[in-house]
Amino acid sequence: MFYAIGLGLADEKDITVKGLEIVKRAERVYLEAYTAILLVDKEALEAYYGRSVILADREMVESSSDQILADADKVDVAFLVVGDPFSATTHTDLILRARALSIPIQTLPNASIMTAIGACGLSLYNFGQTVSMVFFTESWKPASYYDRMLENWNLGLHTLVLLDIKVKEPDLQAMARGRIIYEPPRFMTVAQCAAQMIETEEEKKAGVFHADDVLAVGVARAGAADMSIVAGTLTQLAEVDMGRPLHSLVLVGKRMHEMERDFVREFAVDKTVFDEVWKKSYEGHGQ
Amino acid sequence: MFYAIGLGLADEKDITVKGLEIVKRAERVYLEAYTAILLVDKEALEAYYGRSVILADREMVESSSDQILADADKVDVAFLVVGDPFSATTHTDLILRARALSIPIQTLPNASIMTAIGACGLSLYNFGQTVSMVFFTESWKPASYYDRMLENWNLGLHTLVLLDIKVKEPDLQAMARGRIIYEPPRFMTVAQCAAQMIETEEEKKAGVFHADDVLAVGVARAGAADMSIVAGTLTQLAEVDMGRPLHSLVLVGKRMHEMERDFVREFAVDKTVFDEVWKKSYEGHGQ
Repeated sequence: MFYAIGLGLADEKDITVKGLEIVKRAERVYLEAYTAILLVDKEALEAYYGRSVILADREMVESSSDQILADADKVDVAFLVVGDPFSATTHTDLILRARALSIPIQTLPNASIMTAIGACGLSLYNFGQTVSMVFFTESWKPASYYDRMLENWNLGLHTLVLLDIKVKEPDLQAMARGRIIYEPPRFMTVAQCAAQMIETEEEKKAGVFHADDVLAVGVARAGAADMSIVAGTLTQLAEVDMGRPLHSLVLVGKRMHEMERDFVREFAVDKTVFDEVWKKSYEGHGQ
Repeated sequence: MFYAIGLGLADEKDITVKGLEIVKRAERVYLEAYTAILLVDKEALEAYYGRSVILADREMVESSSDQILADADKVDVAFLVVGDPFSATTHTDLILRARALSIPIQTLPNASIMTAIGACGLSLYNFGQTVSMVFFTESWKPASYYDRMLENWNLGLHTLVLLDIKVKEPDLQAMARGRIIYEPPRFMTVAQCAAQMIETEEEKKAGVFHADDVLAVGVARAGAADMSIVAGTLTQLAEVDMGRPLHSLVLVGKRMHEMERDFVREFAVDKTVFDEVWKKSYEGHGQ
């Protein structure tokens, strides 16, 4: 059996009891560690599981899936995914490949940022489609997220923005000199995301998400004991320091109702500003 | 500390290791059992946890929250929620109340149908807002879900439909005779949901979700070992028998891309019909 097992969001104890039993008895255990990370490292997992874990990087999952799936029709293979196994498309590939090889598959779902984000007090029923934000470079500032965000915005819905992480990215300058060196891992912060959103808005000039007139919520380390939540305008969030990864951001849609406001307001950088923006942009739009 | 702990979707072993540790040591343990149910009963949980669990029905959570929260500033109280603690608004109330009482709160997220639905092969990034479907009666057929579904549909997005459950509903006829009797629990099936969608469409005559021209996916017992998935037109799904609860349904949006199609097609009631509907209504709309 091929088991795709969600690890949840924070540490080694966020695996389910059922998942842990499978990990302990499986023939091989892989850890996918490039679309998201836990707040603990592979060694902590190995110590807790009492067994070794094979790190599966993007290259292995995308190019050597048959190696991961080898013999899984005869023995148990566990493939550990931070969060929930179906949050990222890549694992759909792997499951399709397993199916093509007639390997029996079982998925063990777990917490995902897509639902854990509810801890900020915004109703999950009021979220539209989720978007991703990648690190902008001087020459590459993809704005396709903006169009989807605008679709949500026009319906009054919240948008969850998942922030880029770069793990084991090759250093292109070193590569040009014939050496393979990996850049240190990078994780986008709430402040960087807010700043990029402001940048896109200034370029698009669609005049929708005014940096000072919309509310956004930054969430750091969702699901962990030291989770941190901050609410404010985009301008305010572009200045916050929310500490270590992972971070996520929600652009608050106009349908925000009063119970959501009451909950989120507790996290405001500045309650006076929060109330002003609520009055100006949100009040009366709730459903 | 007041702990809101997600139980996941299937059975007693879907709790996280961290959650189980808290349940074992908490002073009191409540189980919320009216917005969703596990596939096992309270007794199975109690046997597994090795302790008693207090059933919290809607009345207790909504009217006697101070009883649940009593002393939680001094002792540990665990409040168990099927799925993820933030999937239903009711628990937001409870958390707001705990906050008002200055009780420290920690949330342990877990799998939710909102992400576990990804097991059907539809990308979570292509879902719009989630809607709920209640049991229609002769005189009450609320269609507000339809308007939200239409918003998603117009954007080409999938819609997850969460199906009504009735647990511990008072028998109104008996009540009129001065007796309190509860109706047996009822859980909406995929077939009932599809039939109700067809009914609404016929009334609204917006001519959008043609029962034979749109694809939908039915999922039963998401996250469990005997999870079952069926894909077809609404007409086809109105005839399926997917066995014991819980059931959910997804109306497939036009943006469905080819990898999603390949995955979902495996679950088709009839692959020929599936391919015809794909060609007629979906092909070329993917992004």
